[in-house]
Amino acid sequence: MSDEIHEECGVFGVFGVDDAASLVALGLHALQHRGQEGCGIAAFDGQMFHHERHMGLVGERFTGADLTKRLPGRAAMGHVRYSTSGGSIAQNLQPLYADLQSGGFAIAHNGNLTNARTLREDLVAEGRIFHSVSDTEVVLHLIAKSTRNTTVERFIDALDQIEGGYALVALTNKKLMAARDPLGIRPLVLGQLGDHFVVTSESCALDMIGAVFVRDVRPGEVLVIDSDGLRSYSRVPERRPRTCAFEYIYFARPDSVIDQIGVYESRKRMGRILAEEHGADADIVVPVPDSGVPAAIGFAEASGMAFELGIIRSHFVGRTFIQPSQEIRDMGVRMKHRANASVLKGKRVVLVDDSIVRGTTSRKIVRMVREAGATEVHFRSASPPIKWPDFYGIDMPERDKLIAARLDDFGKIADELAADSVDYISVDGLYRAITGQPRNDKAPALTDHYFTGDYPTPLVDFDRGLADKERQLSFLDVA
Amino acid sequence: MSDEIHEECGVFGVFGVDDAASLVALGLHALQHRGQEGCGIAAFDGQMFHHERHMGLVGERFTGADLTKRLPGRAAMGHVRYSTSGGSIAQNLQPLYADLQSGGFAIAHNGNLTNARTLREDLVAEGRIFHSVSDTEVVLHLIAKSTRNTTVERFIDALDQIEGGYALVALTNKKLMAARDPLGIRPLVLGQLGDHFVVTSESCALDMIGAVFVRDVRPGEVLVIDSDGLRSYSRVPERRPRTCAFEYIYFARPDSVIDQIGVYESRKRMGRILAEEHGADADIVVPVPDSGVPAAIGFAEASGMAFELGIIRSHFVGRTFIQPSQEIRDMGVRMKHRANASVLKGKRVVLVDDSIVRGTTSRKIVRMVREAGATEVHFRSASPPIKWPDFYGIDMPERDKLIAARLDDFGKIADELAADSVDYISVDGLYRAITGQPRNDKAPALTDHYFTGDYPTPLVDFDRGLADKERQLSFLDVA
Amino acid sequence: MSDEIHEECGVFGVFGVDDAASLVALGLHALQHRGQEGCGIAAFDGQMFHHERHMGLVGERFTGADLTKRLPGRAAMGHVRYSTSGGSIAQNLQPLYADLQSGGFAIAHNGNLTNARTLREDLVAEGRIFHSVSDTEVVLHLIAKSTRNTTVERFIDALDQIEGGYALVALTNKKLMAARDPLGIRPLVLGQLGDHFVVTSESCALDMIGAVFVRDVRPGEVLVIDSDGLRSYSRVPERRPRTCAFEYIYFARPDSVIDQIGVYESRKRMGRILAEEHGADADIVVPVPDSGVPAAIGFAEASGMAFELGIIRSHFVGRTFIQPSQEIRDMGVRMKHRANASVLKGKRVVLVDDSIVRGTTSRKIVRMVREAGATEVHFRSASPPIKWPDFYGIDMPERDKLIAARLDDFGKIADELAADSVDYISVDGLYRAITGQPRNDKAPALTDHYFTGDYPTPLVDFDRGLADKERQLSFLDVA
Amino acid sequence: MSDEIHEECGVFGVFGVDDAASLVALGLHALQHRGQEGCGIAAFDGQMFHHERHMGLVGERFTGADLTKRLPGRAAMGHVRYSTSGGSIAQNLQPLYADLQSGGFAIAHNGNLTNARTLREDLVAEGRIFHSVSDTEVVLHLIAKSTRNTTVERFIDALDQIEGGYALVALTNKKLMAARDPLGIRPLVLGQLGDHFVVTSESCALDMIGAVFVRDVRPGEVLVIDSDGLRSYSRVPERRPRTCAFEYIYFARPDSVIDQIGVYESRKRMGRILAEEHGADADIVVPVPDSGVPAAIGFAEASGMAFELGIIRSHFVGRTFIQPSQEIRDMGVRMKHRANASVLKGKRVVLVDDSIVRGTTSRKIVRMVREAGATEVHFRSASPPIKWPDFYGIDMPERDKLIAARLDDFGKIADELAADSVDYISVDGLYRAITGQPRNDKAPALTDHYFTGDYPTPLVDFDRGLADKERQLSFLDVA
Repeated sequence: MSDEIHEECGVFGVFGVDDAASLVALGLHALQHRGQEGCGIAAFDGQMFHHERHMGLVGERFTGADLTKRLPGRAAMGHVRYSTSGGSIAQNLQPLYADLQSGGFAIAHNGNLTNARTLREDLVAEGRIFHSVSDTEVVLHLIAKSTRNTTVERFIDALDQIEGGYALVALTNKKLMAARDPLGIRPLVLGQLGDHFVVTSESCALDMIGAVFVRDVRPGEVLVIDSDGLRSYSRVPERRPRTCAFEYIYFARPDSVIDQIGVYESRKRMGRILAEEHGADADIVVPVPDSGVPAAIGFAEASGMAFELGIIRSHFVGRTFIQPSQEIRDMGVRMKHRANASVLKGKRVVLVDDSIVRGTTSRKIVRMVREAGATEVHFRSASPPIKWPDFYGIDMPERDKLIAARLDDFGKIADELAADSVDYISVDGLYRAITGQPRNDKAPALTDHYFTGDYPTPLVDFDRGLADKERQLSFLDVA
Repeated sequence: MSDEIHEECGVFGVFGVDDAASLVALGLHALQHRGQEGCGIAAFDGQMFHHERHMGLVGERFTGADLTKRLPGRAAMGHVRYSTSGGSIAQNLQPLYADLQSGGFAIAHNGNLTNARTLREDLVAEGRIFHSVSDTEVVLHLIAKSTRNTTVERFIDALDQIEGGYALVALTNKKLMAARDPLGIRPLVLGQLGDHFVVTSESCALDMIGAVFVRDVRPGEVLVIDSDGLRSYSRVPERRPRTCAFEYIYFARPDSVIDQIGVYESRKRMGRILAEEHGADADIVVPVPDSGVPAAIGFAEASGMAFELGIIRSHFVGRTFIQPSQEIRDMGVRMKHRANASVLKGKRVVLVDDSIVRGTTSRKIVRMVREAGATEVHFRSASPPIKWPDFYGIDMPERDKLIAARLDDFGKIADELAADSVDYISVDGLYRAITGQPRNDKAPALTDHYFTGDYPTPLVDFDRGLADKERQLSFLDVA
Repeated sequence: MSDEIHEECGVFGVFGVDDAASLVALGLHALQHRGQEGCGIAAFDGQMFHHERHMGLVGERFTGADLTKRLPGRAAMGHVRYSTSGGSIAQNLQPLYADLQSGGFAIAHNGNLTNARTLREDLVAEGRIFHSVSDTEVVLHLIAKSTRNTTVERFIDALDQIEGGYALVALTNKKLMAARDPLGIRPLVLGQLGDHFVVTSESCALDMIGAVFVRDVRPGEVLVIDSDGLRSYSRVPERRPRTCAFEYIYFARPDSVIDQIGVYESRKRMGRILAEEHGADADIVVPVPDSGVPAAIGFAEASGMAFELGIIRSHFVGRTFIQPSQEIRDMGVRMKHRANASVLKGKRVVLVDDSIVRGTTSRKIVRMVREAGATEVHFRSASPPIKWPDFYGIDMPERDKLIAARLDDFGKIADELAADSVDYISVDGLYRAITGQPRNDKAPALTDHYFTGDYPTPLVDFDRGLADKERQLSFLDVA
Repeated sequence: MSDEIHEECGVFGVFGVDDAASLVALGLHALQHRGQEGCGIAAFDGQMFHHERHMGLVGERFTGADLTKRLPGRAAMGHVRYSTSGGSIAQNLQPLYADLQSGGFAIAHNGNLTNARTLREDLVAEGRIFHSVSDTEVVLHLIAKSTRNTTVERFIDALDQIEGGYALVALTNKKLMAARDPLGIRPLVLGQLGDHFVVTSESCALDMIGAVFVRDVRPGEVLVIDSDGLRSYSRVPERRPRTCAFEYIYFARPDSVIDQIGVYESRKRMGRILAEEHGADADIVVPVPDSGVPAAIGFAEASGMAFELGIIRSHFVGRTFIQPSQEIRDMGVRMKHRANASVLKGKRVVLVDDSIVRGTTSRKIVRMVREAGATEVHFRSASPPIKWPDFYGIDMPERDKLIAARLDDFGKIADELAADSVDYISVDGLYRAITGQPRNDKAPALTDHYFTGDYPTPLVDFDRGLADKERQLSFLDVA
C-alpha cells in the first residue's frame, strides 16, 4: 500500500537539441509518477533564460503549439514535484532560477539533504534571503557565494558541503551540469539522443524521447555537458551505488532499469521469493493494483495459483473528492479500489501488495474483499516490515503511524487487518530479488534503513533537532 | 484498441434517502469510465429543484463539504458524459431541467435515438425551441407537449414515439422514473439501499454506495419510484434483452454484472476462446492495457504461455497534451503506452487487445514492441472485426476509417499493422464467451451490428438522410 | 442617489458592415452605463450564427485581435445587462438564440413586459419549454409559434401580444429587425454608418462608432433592415413618445439626445429650476457625484453660489468589497464617496443629487459632509419624490423602502437624513426642465408613474397577482 | 493628460489594532489611484506572519468575511502598485517578505532609488540572490546583511546607503517602521486611530478609516512604532520637504493634504493663475476629465466663463479592450472620453487639462471637440511644459516622446494638436498656486526637474549607464 508514501521528485535535462523544452516536457511526463503536484521547465535560448513553474500535471501545463515559443532554446531542464496532501506551496516548485554574478543559473533536484537546516541557519546568519523552503535553494546559495573561479568549481564546492541523497541538474548559459550523491541513493542516468546528452532520474524517460541509455551516473559523480561534449568529475572513490530499495519496490516505473537492474523483473522476483518464503493454502492470487501487480504475477507463477484481477482500480480519483458526511466518507476506499465480487466469491484469496505502511487502507481492502465473498484472506507484502523513517527524499508517515513499528508480531498485524494471515518478504529475500544476493551487513548493497534502521549517512539536522523545523518555516513564507 | 470508440454516458438516480446528491456523486464516480467530458446532478429538496452541470470529472466537480447544501434533498439523479476530441459543448451536458406545467422535470439518458432528427424537425415546425443538440431534449419536448393526464402517462407517451437504444432517468417533484429501450440495448439496473430504490447504468455503481442489486430493468420496462414504493409498466411483451455486445467487450467496468453475465469473466472467456480459435506459437502473452488485460489473462491460461506486463500504461495523460512539432508528436503513442523492454527482448509475443478499430494505434504499438526487441509479434483481438457503424450511443470512426471494413483479409491487416499475424475471435466465439451459446441468427441474443451489419431497430433518421445533421446544428447553437 | 435604482439593459445592432461584431462591441461599451452584469453578441457570417454571452464588462469580454474570428460576419447585434446585487444568473444573459424552422434567430431587449408572466403561463400550458426567466424568451416563443407567413409578420404578431415598455432588436439570416413599444417608454434610435443602418438604445453609441444620428424610432414602429435597405411598419397611429422620465434624470449618458432633447442640458435645467423653486441660503453648491453633477452646475449658475467638488467619488469600487466586521462595514460609504474637508469646512452647503430613493445613502453622505466641517447641509433632489414602483424595466426597491412613500412631509425626511432642509423639484418643474412645458395631465409627455402613480399601460401580471412570481422561478432554473 | 504618466505606488501600515489587515485593505483602497496593477498585505498575529500579494484591485482581492482569518493580527501593512502597459510581473508585487536571522521582515515602498542598480551589482557580486527587480529588494538585502546590533540600526544602516525618493514601511514581529527620503520627495503621513499609530502615503487614507491626521513625516525621518509607542529618528538636519510637484498636479487625491497644502485647492489655484496668465477669448471652459476638473473650475471662476462638462468620461474602460482592426482602434479615444456635442456646438472652447505629456491623446481630444461642433479650441495646461525624465518613482515616456521637449515653441505645439492656441502655466505660476510664492531658484520648495531639469539628488545609476538595465533583467526573472 505504498500509495501512502511518496517520493519528492524527478529531474530531466538535455543540451544541444532543437526544441529542447519539448523534449523536457515529454521526459517529465514519463517521470510524472515521481511527482504530481507541480512541474517546471527552464530553457536557455542563447541570449536569455525562460522559466515556467506550475501546479498540476506536465501534460496539462507544458502543452500547446506555442510551447517552444514560450520556452525557446537548445538547452533546457525540468522537474516534477510530488503531491502533498496539505496546502500546495507554489514557491517550492522547481527549477529555481537566479541571476548570479556569473549569469543566469537554474537548478532542480530530487532527494533530500540531511544537513539542509543547518546550512540554511548559517546562510541566514550571513544575511542571505531565502524565498522557499526547498533544499535546492540551500545549494543555490552555496553556489552563489562560492569564491571559486569557475562555475564547475563553485558547483562542486557547494556539493562538498551537503549531505544526503540527491540527483541534481543545473543549467547555465554555457553548460548543463548533473550530480548524484556520493552513495548513489537517488537514481540518475545518462542518455544520448543523436550526438547530444540527456540526464534524467529514470531510464523510462530516455525511452520516451527515443534516447539511448548510456550508463547510470556514478555515486559522487559530477557531469558537465557543453558544446565541447561531456566531462566527468569524481568527488569520491569509485564504489557501487547503494540505491534506495524503495525505487525498486515502488517508486520507479516498471519499465525502468536502475543501476543495471530491471524494475519489473525485480518486482516479479519479490513475488516469487515471497511465495517461497510465505506461501498460503489458497485458491487465487489477487494484486492490490496497480503497484502490487508485478509481485502478484510472480507470486502466482511461483505458487501455481491462478492470477485474478479481484480488485479493480479507478484512475479517475482526483485529489479533491471530499464527501460531506462521515457515512459517505466511509465509502471512500471504493473510490479507488473496488472488489470484483464474481472473482472473489467463495474463494480463498492471497492479496499481494508492494508494502504495508499504516495498515489503514490495507484493512479496508481486506474488509472489502471479505464482503465480496472471499472465504479467507491472506495478506502478503513484497517488502519487509517498514519500521524507520526516511531522510533522503521519501515522504512517509511518522514512526508511530507505521503499523510494523507499532506492532511487534505479524499475528497482531493480521488481527488489526482482520486478515487470516499476514506475512512479509524477508530483508534477505528482498536483497535476493533485487541484487541476487542476501544482504551483506558489512557493506549493504542497498539503502534500506526503513527496514533495518541502518542509515547510510550522518543525520546532521536530525541530531541537532532541526529536522522538523521545515514545516513551520513553510507557513511563514506563504506567498 | 477500443480507446478509439466511446460510449455516450451513464445515469444514476436515487429516491428517498438523506443527502441524495452525495450518493449520486459517488455513483457517478463509479460510472466515470462511461464518460469523462462532463457531469451533472439534479436534486429535489421537497420545495425546489437544484441543478448543477459541469465540464470535467465527478470527483473534481461534485465534491466538498457543501455539496449537500448546494444540492439538498432526498431525491436526486445525475449523468456522466463522454469526452469528445473536438470542442466541448457545455449546453449538451445533462440532466436537462425544465419547468413544465406540471412542475419541475429533470431528465438524463444514455444511448442514442434513431429517429431523433425526424422528431426534432417536427417539433421545430411546431415552433418549439431547442437549446441543445441532445436527443434528451427531444424526449423532454415530447413529454412537455403530451396531453395525457398523468406524468407517468406523458412519459410513456413520449417513449412510444422514440426509437433506438436508451436508458432514461427522470425526476419530478414526486417521482423518480426510469426506462430501458424495448430491446434492452443499453444496460440499466435496479438496486436497493435499505428500503430505498436506486437505478443506474451498471451494477458497479450500486456496489460503490453499498446498495444491493435487485435485478436488471427489463427491455421496454418503465419504473416509477415514489413515496409509495416501486411500480413497473411494461411497454412491450416480455423478452430477453439484446444487450450491446460492446458493453461486455469494452465499455462496462470489469466488476459489473450486466443482464446476469459478469463482465470480467466474459472477457477472460473471450481470451480463452481466442486462444483456442487462433493460438500462436510464441513465448509470452502481453495485454494492451488496460482494456486488453482480462482477455490476455484468459489467453495465457488457455495457451499455457506466461502472462507478462510487456506494455506499461500511463494514467497521467490529459487530453490536452499537444506537442509543437511533428517529430515530437510521433512520440505520442509512448505518452500512454510504453514498451517494457526487459520483458519483451528476444521474445515471441502475442499481443492481446479487446478490439482493433482504425488500426493506427495498434500499428504504433506493434512497432514499439518490435523496437523493444520482440522477435515476433502476433496480434489478437478479443472482438470480431468491426465493420459497421453504430447508431445506439457509441461514438465510432466513420466506416471508411475502420480497418476491417477497408481490408477484406487478415493478412492485409497484418501487413498494415506490421504484425507477424493478426487474428480475431469469431462472432460465434464471442457469443459463446458472453452467452455460452453460438449466435442464433434468427434471434440473436446480443446487439452486434458492428460485426454483422444486422441492426436491431429501424434507422429512421439514417434512411431519411438526417443522421449527420447533428454536427452542423451543434455549431449553430454554440453558447 | 439613483445608484440605488437600475435599468435593465441596452441594445445595439448593425447590418451590412465588415467586422460587424467589433462595432457592436464598441457600441455596447458606450452603453455600458445601462448594464454592467453581463453582455452578449450574436453575429451572422452569411452561413452560420456565432454567439457569445458573458458575465462582466464589454471591454473585458469582447476584446482581442481574434474578436472578428470568434464572431465573424457583416451583421451583428448585442446587449448589455445590469448588475443585480444578488446572485448573477448567466442564462438570463442576452441575446437569446434559437434555431427556428425559418432558420437562426437572435433577439435581445431593454425594458419589461407587463403581461410576460401571463403569456408565459399560457405557453407553458402548451408544453413549451423555457430556459430563462427573461421576458425576451416569451417574445421568442411567440415568434416561434406564430403561423404567419413571413418573418416580419411573425415578429409583429408577437409584438401585438405583448404589453409594456421595450426596445427590441432581432437578427435573422436575412434581416436586422427593431421595435419600440407603442408609447415609446424605452428609447431607441436609428443611425447610419456610410450606407448602412444601426439601431441602438442611445445616441451616444452612434457617436462612439462614428455613425450619424438619423432619427428616434417612433412609438410602436417596427424597422426591418436588410440588403434592400430599410423598411418601416407602424403598429399604432403616430404619436409623440411618452419617454421614461428617468432616462433624462439618471439612466442615459449626458451626451445622449433622446427624442430630440439633450440629456445634459435637461439635467442642468433641472438644477436651475430646482434652485428657483427651492433655493437655500448657503455658501457653496456640492454635487453628489457623478449623477448629481450636471444639476449642481445648473443650481450653482442659477443661484450664483460657487460650485465645488466637496465630495470625491472613487471609481475603483468593485461589487465584491465585503468587509469582515460591522465596525468596518460602517466605513463603507467612504469607499465610494469621500468628503473633501478643506472645501467643506465652515461652509453652509447645498448638496445636489439626481434623486433620493431609500434615503439611507443620502443620510450617510449628509453625516459625512457634516463631519468634514460643514455648518449647514441642505439636500436638494433634481427629481420629484419617488413614491411608486416601476414595471417597465427599472429595478427599484419595494414601495415600503422608498423614503418619500414612507414619509409624507419633507420636514420628516430632513429629520431622517439629518439635513437642515430637504427639497425636491416639482413635477411641473421636472416637465419644464425636460420638455419646456408643465405637465399636461390629460396627455402627459413623459412616463412618470414613480412620481404620480399614473401608469401608462395596463398592468396585466400585477392585476393577476403574477408580477412577483419571477424571482421564485429564477431559483428553479439555476443552471 | 497625465493619464500617460504613472506613479509607482502607495503604502499603508497600522500597529496595535484589532483586525489590522481590514484597516489596511480600506486604506489601500483609498490609495488605489496610486496604483491599480496589484496589491499586497502582510500581517503579524503575534506568532506568525501572513502574506498575500495579488494582481488586481484591492476591492476585488482583499475582500470577504474571511479576510481577517487569512491575514490575522494586530499589526499589518500593505502596498498598491501601478499598472504597467506591458506584461505584469507578479513577483514585483509588494510587500516583500523575508525570514531574516532576526525573524520575519516585511517591507514595501513608494518611489525610486537612483542608485539601486549600482547597489544590486555589488550585492550580486557577494553571491546574494535576487527574486525580483524591485528596488525594495535591494533595501531588504542591505538590511539583511547589516551587522548592526538592532533592527532599527540595521534599517537606518540600509537607508544610509540609498539615494532617491521614497516612502518606506516595514513590519517586524515587534515593530512597524517607516521612513521618508531626505528631501521629502515622496509623501508620507502619520495618523492616529484611538491610541494607535498609522502611517500612509496620503491623508485621504487616514480619512477612509476614520483616523486623525497627526503630521507629515519629516524629510529623512525614521518612525518606529511598537508597544511602547512612537519614536522618531532624524537622519538629516531638519528642513522643509521638497515635495514632488506632480503629487499636487496629478497623483494625489483631491481630498488629500500634503505637507500642509490641500491638493484640491492648489489645483483650483493652478486654474485661476492659468486663466490670469493665459486667458482666452472664448465661451465656455471644459475640463478634460477627471484630472482637469479642479483646474477648470478655477479657470472658469477666474475668467468668468461658464464651466461645462463638454467631455464625458467613461469609467468602464478595462485595460484589455483590444480591437481587431486599425480603423476600429482609431475610435479608441472615445472609449474613455466622448464629446458632449450639444454643449460644444458652435462654441469657442477652452480645454483645461492638468498637463500635456506626449500630446497624442490631447490631439485626439481636440479633434473630437472640433468634430462635435466647437468653432475654436484653446488648450490650457495646468502644469508647465514637461521636458525632462523622472528618476524618483514616476513612470513617464522617454524624453524624445515628450512633446514639449521635442518642440520649442507653443505655436508648433498648437499646430501639432490642431488647437487654435496652446498655453501652459509658468513655473512661477505653479509655485504660487502650490506654495503661495514664486520659485526660489537657490532653494526650490518643490521637486520640479520635469519642468526645469534641476534634479534634487545625484543620479548614480544614470551617470554609470545602469539606469535602463532593469527592463532586461525583468525578462530574465519571469516566473
